[in-house]
Amino acid sequence: MSEILQRLADSLEARRQASPETSYVASLYHKGLDSILKKIAEEAAETIMAAKDGDKQKIVYETADLWFHTLVLLADQGIRPEAVLQELARREGTSGHAEKLSRKE
Amino acid sequence: MSEILQRLADSLEARRQASPETSYVASLYHKGLDSILKKIAEEAAETIMAAKDGDKQKIVYETADLWFHTLVLLADQGIRPEAVLQELARREGTSGHAEKLSRKE
Amino acid sequence: MSEILQRLADSLEARRQASPETSYVASLYHKGLDSILKKIAEEAAETIMAAKDGDKQKIVYETADLWFHTLVLLADQGIRPEAVLQELARREGTSGHAEKLSRKE
Amino acid sequence: MSEILQRLADSLEARRQASPETSYVASLYHKGLDSILKKIAEEAAETIMAAKDGDKQKIVYETADLWFHTLVLLADQGIRPEAVLQELARREGTSGHAEKLSRKE
Repeated sequence: MSEILQRLADSLEARRQASPETSYVASLYHKGLDSILKKIAEEAAETIMAAKDGDKQKIVYETADLWFHTLVLLADQGIRPEAVLQELARREGTSGHAEKLSRKE
Repeated sequence: MSEILQRLADSLEARRQASPETSYVASLYHKGLDSILKKIAEEAAETIMAAKDGDKQKIVYETADLWFHTLVLLADQGIRPEAVLQELARREGTSGHAEKLSRKE
Repeated sequence: MSEILQRLADSLEARRQASPETSYVASLYHKGLDSILKKIAEEAAETIMAAKDGDKQKIVYETADLWFHTLVLLADQGIRPEAVLQELARREGTSGHAEKLSRKE
Repeated sequence: MSEILQRLADSLEARRQASPETSYVASLYHKGLDSILKKIAEEAAETIMAAKDGDKQKIVYETADLWFHTLVLLADQGIRPEAVLQELARREGTSGHAEKLSRKE
């Protein structure tokens, strides 16, 4: 199931060379980094509003939008989602409180 | 690699019953939905700032933080990350512009 | 100088009854609360990005946008900006640390 | 009423030289720009959540928090709130739609 992140990353990378008219993502790359980051802020806000509405279908939908636009950011920066998954795996053993303490240092 | 999301979801679900002192996540659940949502806003902002800094390692780190806290939200709401991955897969065939148009309807 | 906030509030209130085609603000009211809140998230992100760019003119511009959209929210909710200014005045005597402590209670 | 913004700006400027232990704001300056910006993201999210709760008192409170932390940013950057009020006044004559169009150029 979760190879979907890798497949999406492949497809997002491929569209980086495409002309802005060819797809939503190509137009987003073309507008530049700030436009991608604005979308991340927007989708985070929509996820928050969906959660306040208690609407589970909307939470799924908006979280997908949020993850999608972080994948666009990663592709724009030449970073693979595997790096993020690896970072999550690295923390897995660590308990939350220990993790938080280690971050402060 | 990406079964990590499922493994994390399992572990986040298990901690929902735990006492707030036992872990960072347990304390977050205990503080309630608004605290989880505030963390999502915060981590989105930190991802944006890392990207503005052009610091790839920080982008990976903050994106991991952002995904992690959306996983906490999903677990809090009894939603599996597979639902989000499925939503991303559903959109995969659709081109971005078509997707965006279909959303407006 | 700062009666501008009150003047803006008056004008924003007046536009609440207007048809959505007549102005940007009228169309925003018409789209509903979530659209106003999404703009607040967006303008906060743009303020953050302007600050990361170290671009003072853009900071002024985006802060104005952010304040403006909070004024739209206040008008939408039937709240006067004077209530927010009063809340700021109320805190004025209180030192920051004391304020923060008092909030936790 | 709204000279409160100027008075707050004066007081925020004065605290820029203070040692971090003396006040919440002094400690915020000391932590640096990213900490101030994170607070802006956080307070924007709390304003959004208060609005979703339909809690007018909380909307006033969180909007005050949001304006306050933008004033901290302005002081940190050596910008007076009068510049933001002037920008709002400048736009006042312009209708919303015209304003939005002019921004795109």
